[in-house]
Amino acid sequence: MADPRFFNNKGPFEVQQLLGLADDGAFVRGDNNFKAVDVASLTEAGPQDISFLDNRKYVSAFKKSAAGACIVALEFAERAPAGMTLIVTSRPYRAYARIAQAFYPSAQRGSGVHSTAFVDASAVLAGGVSVGANAVVESGARIGADVEINAGASIGRGVSVGTGTRIGSNSSLEFCDVGARCDIHPGVRIGTRGFGFDMSAEGHLNVPQLGRVILGNDVEVGANSTIDRGAGPDTVIGDGCKIDNLVQIGHNVRMGQGCVIVAQAAVAGSTELQDFVVLGGQSGVAGHLTIAPGTQLAGRSGIMRSTEMGAKLAGNPAIPVKEFFRQTAVLAKLTNDRNRKD
Amino acid sequence: MADPRFFNNKGPFEVQQLLGLADDGAFVRGDNNFKAVDVASLTEAGPQDISFLDNRKYVSAFKKSAAGACIVALEFAERAPAGMTLIVTSRPYRAYARIAQAFYPSAQRGSGVHSTAFVDASAVLAGGVSVGANAVVESGARIGADVEINAGASIGRGVSVGTGTRIGSNSSLEFCDVGARCDIHPGVRIGTRGFGFDMSAEGHLNVPQLGRVILGNDVEVGANSTIDRGAGPDTVIGDGCKIDNLVQIGHNVRMGQGCVIVAQAAVAGSTELQDFVVLGGQSGVAGHLTIAPGTQLAGRSGIMRSTEMGAKLAGNPAIPVKEFFRQTAVLAKLTNDRNRKD
Amino acid sequence: MADPRFFNNKGPFEVQQLLGLADDGAFVRGDNNFKAVDVASLTEAGPQDISFLDNRKYVSAFKKSAAGACIVALEFAERAPAGMTLIVTSRPYRAYARIAQAFYPSAQRGSGVHSTAFVDASAVLAGGVSVGANAVVESGARIGADVEINAGASIGRGVSVGTGTRIGSNSSLEFCDVGARCDIHPGVRIGTRGFGFDMSAEGHLNVPQLGRVILGNDVEVGANSTIDRGAGPDTVIGDGCKIDNLVQIGHNVRMGQGCVIVAQAAVAGSTELQDFVVLGGQSGVAGHLTIAPGTQLAGRSGIMRSTEMGAKLAGNPAIPVKEFFRQTAVLAKLTNDRNRKD
Repeated sequence: MADPRFFNNKGPFEVQQLLGLADDGAFVRGDNNFKAVDVASLTEAGPQDISFLDNRKYVSAFKKSAAGACIVALEFAERAPAGMTLIVTSRPYRAYARIAQAFYPSAQRGSGVHSTAFVDASAVLAGGVSVGANAVVESGARIGADVEINAGASIGRGVSVGTGTRIGSNSSLEFCDVGARCDIHPGVRIGTRGFGFDMSAEGHLNVPQLGRVILGNDVEVGANSTIDRGAGPDTVIGDGCKIDNLVQIGHNVRMGQGCVIVAQAAVAGSTELQDFVVLGGQSGVAGHLTIAPGTQLAGRSGIMRSTEMGAKLAGNPAIPVKEFFRQTAVLAKLTNDRNRKD
Repeated sequence: MADPRFFNNKGPFEVQQLLGLADDGAFVRGDNNFKAVDVASLTEAGPQDISFLDNRKYVSAFKKSAAGACIVALEFAERAPAGMTLIVTSRPYRAYARIAQAFYPSAQRGSGVHSTAFVDASAVLAGGVSVGANAVVESGARIGADVEINAGASIGRGVSVGTGTRIGSNSSLEFCDVGARCDIHPGVRIGTRGFGFDMSAEGHLNVPQLGRVILGNDVEVGANSTIDRGAGPDTVIGDGCKIDNLVQIGHNVRMGQGCVIVAQAAVAGSTELQDFVVLGGQSGVAGHLTIAPGTQLAGRSGIMRSTEMGAKLAGNPAIPVKEFFRQTAVLAKLTNDRNRKD
Repeated sequence: MADPRFFNNKGPFEVQQLLGLADDGAFVRGDNNFKAVDVASLTEAGPQDISFLDNRKYVSAFKKSAAGACIVALEFAERAPAGMTLIVTSRPYRAYARIAQAFYPSAQRGSGVHSTAFVDASAVLAGGVSVGANAVVESGARIGADVEINAGASIGRGVSVGTGTRIGSNSSLEFCDVGARCDIHPGVRIGTRGFGFDMSAEGHLNVPQLGRVILGNDVEVGANSTIDRGAGPDTVIGDGCKIDNLVQIGHNVRMGQGCVIVAQAAVAGSTELQDFVVLGGQSGVAGHLTIAPGTQLAGRSGIMRSTEMGAKLAGNPAIPVKEFFRQTAVLAKLTNDRNRKD
């Protein structure tokens, strides 16, 4: 059970209520009157909990689970332990997300400006805004309704933040417009000076960075990630992008909708990621490229050329995933052959 | 045009004034009475703006640009659209940097200590210092003239900061001396404990880290980068070094003048980077090495040995760039050959 | 000598006192009445200082050192310059750590809550706690004896912190329990939302992250590192783990005792690192794996499969270190051969 110091359980819920949160084709198999008091993992769940199976790796845990109920795809339903009630759905992880949100909706901080916060007189705060202890909102900033600004965050001069967005503790926003319902984690830096200068032995000379960062709606930015403002054009992050921790986005980057950037990846300046590009952890994309929709890059890999739609790449420089594993195998075999000869 | 919420345009400027900012050999071709109201990129510029062409990739944009004026090298001048006024120079990017700085000089924050900041009574602030909301200056710190300390920054006990340096929001300085005219971005950590301990199964034992960080003049440190203090000797960053976001500099590292470290790169402990070393994004240098002047390391590459002056390296372990691309091609060919045989 | 602005020297110490800090088999060779006024590196030490030799690379510096005394292994004792007093021990680095700690014990901040800090009325602070300027302790937090919370740090609702732990400036703790005697560096983020969502073209959907982060005792977390809370299970960091700067630990990760994670490395979600695993700088471990005790991964390498006890790995995907260097050599040779033929 989630620690009540941190999470408030809104349950119990009848299985029929929970079914209503799954997709249209879902159905209950087993006890139609089952009542779930909590969500839990397959190994931790007890007879009053509802769990989920989403990853083939955990089928054996599923077969042994003591969960009273489970969200599961049809292909695994037959392997359920006796007596387990099932919500059978084609999208068990999505159904679990909705059900877990029902049990544990995001906590809302009460609204109001903390006595130790500083909000400049020229800043405009809509209704329901919460400004935490020692947070700062500078001149001319415009903060939308129900925005939550956590302790020690700094909202710079002129910045705008859309409705319902959450700004994590000790983060810094400057030279940017942030959309609605975004989740900016602690320690994020948005709108910082891009890495632009004329390189010279007589002294590197800064080029003013005159653009902004424009963040769409429903964007998540992970802890301590950094997004530089544009050099002239803006840096743009599209609606629904998910950015993990410690990610670097360079100046003038343009990201379409729904891109997913896993931890410690980086996108160099002036590159465009079109819709639904996925970059694995610790991967990188060089500057001035166009990455086509649906491109997927494996972790620890690096793209040096523009890509075709739906490309699946790995390695450095990145090549098609299958080719990467073929090359890996060939090099191992050649080395092995040579050792045997020696 | 740069967003007036964030940037103040000091224009217009006569083309002859702007020419005075370029290098000595530069000249105007076209309308000597042209007046520029703003700077803008080739694609965004209109007939009253001045733009620049610095990268061969953008020649086609140049040929179609509606910019009234453009800063350009002689070799491209012939391809300018009819009627465009040109500032012809051998160093167009540097001229653009100076001209853009004239239009948009760095905004100076007014001086003074914000009412919510804390400055210890024993700290010494020179004239013109600005301390932002909820910033902290601890005992014995010495802050030079015109230093700008932004919201939530923390300047530790005894730290000194040189004239005209800017300290970004929510950054932390401890055990360090920072030079003049530096730009420390938000979230930077300088002077943190180096990663030094005796490793043992009975418990790792910390070795006190008794050095400092000494930052030269005109150093830039990007957002959320970290520079550990020395173990005994100091960690030293030379004049004019440019460090991008999320970079790690280990204890006892010594960097000469003008080094450029791109985002997410790292330098391990006790390594020396001599003058004008360039490390690409996500690259790394192992510890206890000497990297000769002018060494350039490609992105996503790793140096494991000391280098020769002017070396151009790639791969992991890094080898000469040409050799790296040859090896990449050979492995692809061998794999291809083998596939055909199968 | 360590800069007195930052460090207080508690010396001098008699060599016999210092000998008492080394391991049982250690002994003095030379002047049994030597008195050391400071610790210093081999190159910087003078006749009143004690230094140490731990790395074969520095034997030539040892032979030329002006140090009055030195901590050294028996095998190098014969090469000492004439007149140098020696503490001979099988573990010179560990002896140096203890001796340097005697000269320079960690400075204790005076206790008390700074006038500009905010501590919620429902938070509980044990004796000797120090809360720095503009730091924040939210509702229900429990802070153990002698904890030091530095300027601008944010301790979230319900968080607990064990005795004697140090929390660096501008760091953020939420949804976590931190053990005793930990050292959390500036800018660290603990307990942030894990990167969990159902990915879909109709919009990625967040999965509530209902676990915590549980940090053991004597854990060090480097500057700007991030540790996400669990998705349901907790993220657990075992006693005595050492985590360097800019490291990413994903949700549900479990680390045993004494693991060492060098700067910019990452562990993906749901992976277990068993006791004394060492990850080199900029390395990574994929998700859902079990990394056996004592596994060592070279810098800039990536593990994609579970490992055997004591494995020593390098490359991406990681293979045994020796095999990695063999493959590197074979590829170089094949490329060379082919060039000669061309």
